[in-house]
Amino acid sequence: MTAGGSGDAKASGEDLLIARLFEPIATHPGALGLKDDAALLSVPPGHELVLTKDALVAGVHFFADDPPEAIARKAMRVNLSDLAAKGAEPLGVLLAFAIPPEMDAAALTAFARGIGADASLYGAPLLGGDTVRTPGPFIVSITAFGVVPAGQMVRRATAKPDQAIVVSGTIGDAALGLALRLDPSRAGFAGLGEKAASFLKERYLLPRPRLALARALRGRASGAMDVSDGLVGDLTKMLAASGVAGEIEVDRVPLSPAARAAIKAEPALIETALTGGDDYEILAVMPDEELDAFTTFATAAGIGVSVIGRTQAGQGLTVRASNGAAMTFARGSFSHF
Amino acid sequence: MTAGGSGDAKASGEDLLIARLFEPIATHPGALGLKDDAALLSVPPGHELVLTKDALVAGVHFFADDPPEAIARKAMRVNLSDLAAKGAEPLGVLLAFAIPPEMDAAALTAFARGIGADASLYGAPLLGGDTVRTPGPFIVSITAFGVVPAGQMVRRATAKPDQAIVVSGTIGDAALGLALRLDPSRAGFAGLGEKAASFLKERYLLPRPRLALARALRGRASGAMDVSDGLVGDLTKMLAASGVAGEIEVDRVPLSPAARAAIKAEPALIETALTGGDDYEILAVMPDEELDAFTTFATAAGIGVSVIGRTQAGQGLTVRASNGAAMTFARGSFSHF
Repeated sequence: MTAGGSGDAKASGEDLLIARLFEPIATHPGALGLKDDAALLSVPPGHELVLTKDALVAGVHFFADDPPEAIARKAMRVNLSDLAAKGAEPLGVLLAFAIPPEMDAAALTAFARGIGADASLYGAPLLGGDTVRTPGPFIVSITAFGVVPAGQMVRRATAKPDQAIVVSGTIGDAALGLALRLDPSRAGFAGLGEKAASFLKERYLLPRPRLALARALRGRASGAMDVSDGLVGDLTKMLAASGVAGEIEVDRVPLSPAARAAIKAEPALIETALTGGDDYEILAVMPDEELDAFTTFATAAGIGVSVIGRTQAGQGLTVRASNGAAMTFARGSFSHF
Repeated sequence: MTAGGSGDAKASGEDLLIARLFEPIATHPGALGLKDDAALLSVPPGHELVLTKDALVAGVHFFADDPPEAIARKAMRVNLSDLAAKGAEPLGVLLAFAIPPEMDAAALTAFARGIGADASLYGAPLLGGDTVRTPGPFIVSITAFGVVPAGQMVRRATAKPDQAIVVSGTIGDAALGLALRLDPSRAGFAGLGEKAASFLKERYLLPRPRLALARALRGRASGAMDVSDGLVGDLTKMLAASGVAGEIEVDRVPLSPAARAAIKAEPALIETALTGGDDYEILAVMPDEELDAFTTFATAAGIGVSVIGRTQAGQGLTVRASNGAAMTFARGSFSHF
């Protein structure tokens, strides 16, 4: 236990290292070179700010021995994915992280490199933050800021009935990648080639926030969210929040070739794919007449989109198996607060 | 290690408890009842957003056995203190916290009560956040949002020479309160009455963000920051960032009766008071002609302000003891990134 000041990771050379590592990422003028108590952000006239904050814990949301650069990028991306699903363009991020005793200068440098790479890639410069020491695991907390034209944030609780349920990319890769890391010897993974296995693991390690779809969602989707806690659980949540029912067909859920191969070898893995989470794909509900324009936009951005079912009046989600039977899942649904 | 989704503190009854505890605090319409992926914030025309993010770790920034309600309030207040020093009025906060295994429902309830109390007291409603589990210590990360008329954020790096150096409240109470908790038997504390001892400990536990001074700082102070890492270190940082020199007199630094008694009994504690941190008072530089108006405003808000020295051309901070000698301090200066 030390006084407040000295508890921060700031005395000595580590302070200087952190300043040297992060100041170049703070390219936004409002970051004030990371030298003030706060950052300054202007919101363009006629626009609103979209705010999200997700924290990741070593040993919970990533493996403690994942490359620090990948941990940084995952933390950036899970937050940027929320912005994308809300139809928002990124403005910047605030970053706080808790440094465990075993984290050395090389790891800090790699971590900063990851933040910088994604800040640059996604136009989300570092605006400020805080660094603290912890005797516990490495924890990263990012607050991401985005902007939408006023009134156009795409909400979760406003999905309408009799519309298409759409998902971007492919579903289940990350959950399968995690399962593969935990037990590569299980039936679904034993026969996978090296390339397919790497693909699944990479999808767990490095989500791809679908920011390119943000603009296409605005004014088009009646409701949207990103798939972080599993397709089935997240869709259940969106339908419940919106007061509508929905039905999806498992056969229409987009699967990557690697996921398809794993599930073929071990059919029970379909449940992992549908409920496992960490997809960070966009799940949206939109009228049929918007589908063509949305698909065209997505395709131009190099992102596949698939209609997997429809909403309807009522409540609850029905997931239809190939044989038309309603599926049930052991894993419950989860909710962010 | 679990999938991303289930790593969040959300499966089961704890999920429902957290929702039930925090939704009532999310009174801002932009919080969307904490049921969306993101929050929505409008910035009034002609205004800019001021952003700050500070994290606190159990065993580092507070004692693990501090009351959870006080931990919550400290986390709120250290962030709101940054807004105050920047001249910003609070709009709201995002809250992420990492729950250790031993934290039970009663502790969560008390923690939420503390967040809610300060959200209400300071007009800083909960806009959203994230809850995660950790095998390590309890960690709280808050992002606070404030608003200033465009161009009027009070910066740290813009203090001018030949102006007064002003500080609010009293300095050193929190650092002495911490020292007292760590060793109540030392010379400075052994003879303190119960009331004085409680006062110092309370000042460590519950900072008082000087939001009432925010408006008075704007357009008046050439530079300001809050004192979180010790008066001497923080003033050194502000002067260096601003490219000016400064001199303060120890005899003019405002001390509470309790701090004065402790220092009288153990003179070395003056260094603790001046360098220890956790004051969360406002440190500002302003022209002499603004002092009357600032003092009048502060007095009306029930906050004392003291002129402790002056800035001048040059660089470096001189701290004058009662006998006129320049003091030096063992404890270095610290910097937030």
